[in-house]
Amino acid sequence: MKVKAGLVGFGTIGTGVVRLLGEQDELLSKRSGVEVALERIVDIDLERGRGVNTGHALLSSRFEDIVDDPSIDIVIELVGGTTVAREVVARALRAGKHVVTANKALLYEYGEELFQLAIDRQRELRYEASVAGGIPIVRVITESLAGDRICTIYGIVNGTTNFILTRMIQEQWSFEAALKRAQELGFAEADPTLDIDGSDARSKLAILASLAFRCRIDRSRIAKEGIQRIDLTDVLYAKELGYVVKLLATAKERDGEVSLRVNPTLVPEQCALANVSNEFNAVMLQSKFLGDSLYVGRGAGANPTATAVVADVVDLAIRLVGKQAFNANAYAPIHDYATRSYLDTRSRFYLRLATEERAGLLAVITKILGDHGISISAIIQKEATGDQPIPIVLLTRQALERDLRAAVQAINELSFVHGPTVILHIEDIRL
Amino acid sequence: MKVKAGLVGFGTIGTGVVRLLGEQDELLSKRSGVEVALERIVDIDLERGRGVNTGHALLSSRFEDIVDDPSIDIVIELVGGTTVAREVVARALRAGKHVVTANKALLYEYGEELFQLAIDRQRELRYEASVAGGIPIVRVITESLAGDRICTIYGIVNGTTNFILTRMIQEQWSFEAALKRAQELGFAEADPTLDIDGSDARSKLAILASLAFRCRIDRSRIAKEGIQRIDLTDVLYAKELGYVVKLLATAKERDGEVSLRVNPTLVPEQCALANVSNEFNAVMLQSKFLGDSLYVGRGAGANPTATAVVADVVDLAIRLVGKQAFNANAYAPIHDYATRSYLDTRSRFYLRLATEERAGLLAVITKILGDHGISISAIIQKEATGDQPIPIVLLTRQALERDLRAAVQAINELSFVHGPTVILHIEDIRL
Repeated sequence: MKVKAGLVGFGTIGTGVVRLLGEQDELLSKRSGVEVALERIVDIDLERGRGVNTGHALLSSRFEDIVDDPSIDIVIELVGGTTVAREVVARALRAGKHVVTANKALLYEYGEELFQLAIDRQRELRYEASVAGGIPIVRVITESLAGDRICTIYGIVNGTTNFILTRMIQEQWSFEAALKRAQELGFAEADPTLDIDGSDARSKLAILASLAFRCRIDRSRIAKEGIQRIDLTDVLYAKELGYVVKLLATAKERDGEVSLRVNPTLVPEQCALANVSNEFNAVMLQSKFLGDSLYVGRGAGANPTATAVVADVVDLAIRLVGKQAFNANAYAPIHDYATRSYLDTRSRFYLRLATEERAGLLAVITKILGDHGISISAIIQKEATGDQPIPIVLLTRQALERDLRAAVQAINELSFVHGPTVILHIEDIRL
Repeated sequence: MKVKAGLVGFGTIGTGVVRLLGEQDELLSKRSGVEVALERIVDIDLERGRGVNTGHALLSSRFEDIVDDPSIDIVIELVGGTTVAREVVARALRAGKHVVTANKALLYEYGEELFQLAIDRQRELRYEASVAGGIPIVRVITESLAGDRICTIYGIVNGTTNFILTRMIQEQWSFEAALKRAQELGFAEADPTLDIDGSDARSKLAILASLAFRCRIDRSRIAKEGIQRIDLTDVLYAKELGYVVKLLATAKERDGEVSLRVNPTLVPEQCALANVSNEFNAVMLQSKFLGDSLYVGRGAGANPTATAVVADVVDLAIRLVGKQAFNANAYAPIHDYATRSYLDTRSRFYLRLATEERAGLLAVITKILGDHGISISAIIQKEATGDQPIPIVLLTRQALERDLRAAVQAINELSFVHGPTVILHIEDIRL
């Protein structure tokens, strides 16, 4: 049986979807028992050559030609942004269509409203491609771990920053040199701000956490720090201490409260997550029954993302053909967890201070930390070269972030400490 | 709506399934919209305490009480072995029930017959738990990559051997010491033969490959070698050369032919697969659209395996409630690929020879290799200590295994070469 789809947004990913549906047409129908027919493609630019066969699909520049066409069953939204995309998704759901999107910014900004609309209309809004591209993490969480209880998510969900950090670690490049190379290779945009400052990772983490914990996330309480201030010095100290610096998206559920943060984090160099390199993404889950599990793949790019979009389309098509009732509630909140401020969460920390040489230096600093209830697990202090400030690197044991920040503020106020102390998180990941 | 399940086999995994269904009952029904009721549990030993609440399930020692009960929708087969298990699965399918199993040996031996039975009766035989325990690899292949084309599978699918190799690498233990520790920790059985010699990994690889390539596999043509002959020396040489030794299950589809092998293999130490340690399992896929992707988790144990069993049960339950037609063909062969003998496949190789010291030694050996069309990419020859034979380690470029084995046979026949040369495969995995 044939299911009819319409595509809005014929850009990079859209082209990948058209190519995949075209090339794999026969295999898809053999495997799944359904035929997905791409009936219409909408884009404002219909002139540009995409090097892909659009088959029998009608091309149009008006998305109304898809959302108002009663013969279309599934709308694929690949417009990007949060204005037109929001209208496309909302109108499609209202018109009784199922929607597949890859738009994490849309879900971050308007997810609550759009999922509620899907529930009201008993239609599905699927979004596998919106988080970690081709990694089937949404399906793993909703289906494979349906009977489990996820308590922690660790994600490397931004390929641009992972590429930059990998090159800093492996080639000892500066941040600027690594960013330039990422741009040359197409792994970073001309304006990479939303990747570099952690905003992109934050959107994805919020989507993943609301799904894994089945609760609403207070977005104002997600801690966010990018990699723009990461210095090669810190990357090298981390290495010396047996750690690798990653831009880690972390979400935890503990005792009915959730906490979310995106920040540069030290992870042990021998864990599999530390070895997810370059543009690759990874999501690690810790759950009650399965324990640790890790999913790695390409988080961006036309073909990987298209794979995820097509998987969602085929899954919807199978259900449509089977006349199966849709469970729009599958993504709705179940739990009423509060979002805890990052200041009230505990972590281990990496601190790097620049100080003048003087007697009793370490005694003063460790006393301040001790007074705030913070113990130290490792120290590196190297001999001074010339009259450069002396760097001191400290690793702490578990501490409340509020206490840690208070202690660091006191340290920064010391007359012999130069400039702000670098603070990075440490996560002792085993897998 | 309620779906009724019966469990045959109340051992370790069965206990995990009963626990998971019991503890997560409410969450499962909230998430999936269905209620799974465990109506009957069958085992020959009903006396032993399992420390788990069996709820309202009736206990029995006769599996007929499940397969002949018309009210049971889904049969969970966790008996193990291939005799009773085969009868339970076949009778359940014939009686019109869907079946969930974790039994890789059963599928390896009788899969063809049982899947055909499922197709004939239009019922599903689900087996997520049979390969790599809690890693949802079956679902990833069948659903997430439904539109993709998988060309290579790399698997670390046996936890016992991965634990042993990890300890040999990290602690420089001998094979015997590592095996003993694995047995103490419950990661190896009293008789570990089927794990150590690669048989267990071979069963899993055959199941994965037939699913990923959607073809029949000629089991007589799967190359298999265990880790019983791996020496600490080779583990350390590999490390020196930048590689890690893993018992790798490899399946490739090239130009309409498939090749499968399980053997100790060198993988680059910086790839994520190399850092999958101890009892963890991993499956890496290379596919046309998604590219490289990797899935890591616990391959054995009551709770991880139970997670996979329950995911299959819930998925079937959702379809039953939705009155959706079942697509038993989802696992049937589509392609008519021949299985190529491992001798006709190409690979890179690690060779370790033990020789007497003599002039022109390397010239003779490299000439033999050259005459068989084999080039060398790296050599380590260390100075002799005492009158021990001198070890020479060679890494080759890509070569046909048939040529390589002929060359090694000629080398082994040289008067100054002591004992058989060690041959290990090398896979240059990037992810």
